[in-house]
Amino acid sequence: MTPVEVVVIDRDNYHLFQPMLYQVATAGLPTTVISAPIREILHKQANTRVMLAEVTGVDVERRQVVLRGQLPLSYDYLIIATGASANYFQHPEWGEIAPSMKTLEDALAIRSMLLSAFEQAELEPDEEKRRALLTFVLVGAGPTGVELAGSIAELANKTLARDFRHLRPSLTRIMLVDAMPRILPTLPKDLARSAEKQLRHLGVELHVGKMVTDVSGEGITFGGEFVATRAVIWTAGVLASPAGVWLGTEVDHSGRVKVTTALTLQEHDNIFVIGDTACVLQGGKPLPGVAQVAIQEGEYVAEAIQRQLQGEHISYPFHYVDKGTMAMVGRAYALAAIGRLHIAGLIGWLLWVGIHIYNLISFRNRFIVTFQYALNYLTYQRSARIIYHTPDGGKFKREKHSHSM
Amino acid sequence: MTPVEVVVIDRDNYHLFQPMLYQVATAGLPTTVISAPIREILHKQANTRVMLAEVTGVDVERRQVVLRGQLPLSYDYLIIATGASANYFQHPEWGEIAPSMKTLEDALAIRSMLLSAFEQAELEPDEEKRRALLTFVLVGAGPTGVELAGSIAELANKTLARDFRHLRPSLTRIMLVDAMPRILPTLPKDLARSAEKQLRHLGVELHVGKMVTDVSGEGITFGGEFVATRAVIWTAGVLASPAGVWLGTEVDHSGRVKVTTALTLQEHDNIFVIGDTACVLQGGKPLPGVAQVAIQEGEYVAEAIQRQLQGEHISYPFHYVDKGTMAMVGRAYALAAIGRLHIAGLIGWLLWVGIHIYNLISFRNRFIVTFQYALNYLTYQRSARIIYHTPDGGKFKREKHSHSM
Repeated sequence: MTPVEVVVIDRDNYHLFQPMLYQVATAGLPTTVISAPIREILHKQANTRVMLAEVTGVDVERRQVVLRGQLPLSYDYLIIATGASANYFQHPEWGEIAPSMKTLEDALAIRSMLLSAFEQAELEPDEEKRRALLTFVLVGAGPTGVELAGSIAELANKTLARDFRHLRPSLTRIMLVDAMPRILPTLPKDLARSAEKQLRHLGVELHVGKMVTDVSGEGITFGGEFVATRAVIWTAGVLASPAGVWLGTEVDHSGRVKVTTALTLQEHDNIFVIGDTACVLQGGKPLPGVAQVAIQEGEYVAEAIQRQLQGEHISYPFHYVDKGTMAMVGRAYALAAIGRLHIAGLIGWLLWVGIHIYNLISFRNRFIVTFQYALNYLTYQRSARIIYHTPDGGKFKREKHSHSM
Repeated sequence: MTPVEVVVIDRDNYHLFQPMLYQVATAGLPTTVISAPIREILHKQANTRVMLAEVTGVDVERRQVVLRGQLPLSYDYLIIATGASANYFQHPEWGEIAPSMKTLEDALAIRSMLLSAFEQAELEPDEEKRRALLTFVLVGAGPTGVELAGSIAELANKTLARDFRHLRPSLTRIMLVDAMPRILPTLPKDLARSAEKQLRHLGVELHVGKMVTDVSGEGITFGGEFVATRAVIWTAGVLASPAGVWLGTEVDHSGRVKVTTALTLQEHDNIFVIGDTACVLQGGKPLPGVAQVAIQEGEYVAEAIQRQLQGEHISYPFHYVDKGTMAMVGRAYALAAIGRLHIAGLIGWLLWVGIHIYNLISFRNRFIVTFQYALNYLTYQRSARIIYHTPDGGKFKREKHSHSM
């Protein structure tokens, strides 16, 4: 082992397996199945230290990371992989109404929002208001939006239809909206068409080529039309973390840091930027913000630093190998594009489940998730249908007898 | 089946299995294992309707339940089982600092508080501040306080000691404080003495016969001495829900409604009060606020109403049969008093685990909890060590790039 000292700084104490976050948002899995404490993941790695702290800047001249409420930390090599958050474009105020799908907190907020909507609708005597409560609008028809739409449709039509006495599933309306002319732009056209068919089969309305012009507590306006709804979910765009500001370097229109083919800054070859925070060009186009890209970039950087420490230099530029793209559309239906192979349906779903469970980081999680998946599949139950009463946990709030904690 | 219409009103959408709440607070189990949606539990019961709503009063003359933001609901029979919250006696402001252990939100707040304390201590250069961060004070040495103390000791000494590089377990201080002269006053003396020995073995300091006189952000004062700490947990007393106010009837010093031997109000024999909200005298003493009492009261009331509907009357008063008392003190050690039989140690623990898992309401939960227990036991891992960044989720807070969700 190269005699290095590694410090992992994160403002969260856990690592999140993002591809299954929509399962938490739709009450299919509890949060703990898709998240694991960073210290637990790394506890066998003796040369690695974990810090729960928040980065607020980088002093490139002094080679120090600036932390909130902590002394600065010196580095020889710096790897920035601070991700991205939701992009509400010119309307940050929409973020107050329409949660995104980036963090565990986002997923819990959506879960509370969905479940509370059904609870409120059950008690609502006014037909029009009930309709608004049961209208769910998803903005952004990428994989996250499509997966959420399919999952909400099943939650509404199968799981909840059984438990509510006064709600007809036909009252529920799920709308998937995107300004682009088609859904799933990162997947081949024929697969996107299969997904459209499957979504319609599940009762999801597709509204492509329509721009959102307003979001309020009353509803949403897109394509010039107003739809009354209390539940808008935003998966339309990403904004990179402010690493470009910390480093005082050039960024693209999404705030991603422009890096060299060796994934370093032009001016500092000991500073690497990877993942959703980096803009890496390949064949003249920027690489997509997906896990596969980030993982391969991480491996490349580790190799590059190892070589430098041995007095060599990495001689080849970073090159991303696309292993394929997948998207799940509800129960037992997924799409996969692996090179020329295009799969849609049950086989795709089995592949999706296998690959995602395999990639869940710890054995323990892998086992539980399989078990829970199998149970959900057999029973249509959703085990995580819990509405927390945190101040931000949804629209249904209560007063407490005791302390406000 | 008697042709009745049952309406279950709850301000939460889930039923909570409270005896294992301390496992959530100490990151041993995720929330979803000990909670199940009320609708799911009751979905096969065709004559039963579930309402997510908050009761704000009762109009006994009109026989109506008053609800927040809803039309009043008429009843023929009313059963009030609205439980209790923490009692900070004359100091409600302490509740802002010292969370209690009544709700899922409480348990999540404690989990964040404990885990954040270790994270902050790891980064704290000042020895004195580090000591304060690693001092945990539990007020109230009943079963909940004892179970929490044992569980925190193991979290600190086993699970976390492995994951933190800079913390010596010896720095951690866990103090169990009670104004009463001994711990576990509801258990026989010999078992309480065994529990004391086991707690000391785990490194827990016992401070009995000491009154808490101040709680602040800096620390706690008990028995005239100040102890610097950032983590105080309150399990010292309970305050019944305000049912006495709703009903305009007599209550005891904890706010519990005084009921007849048939569990009804003196003035209204169609209004029953049970569980932690009722003060039921047996042999001149009020029955304890435990699940067993509430369950037996519920069964009695169901029988009484059935008989009334058949034109009869229940001829015998409610009588509680004590099946025994248990308390767990850390890993593989529990106490059980079942009639004359007193058990302490591993056998008690096996019994505790068996009974509690058996009582977990649904098969699914029962299965997962067993599995998780077995794994935790074998690996000392705590799967639920996730700190959420909700506004109330602990002392470590951050700013977000996007919306405030």
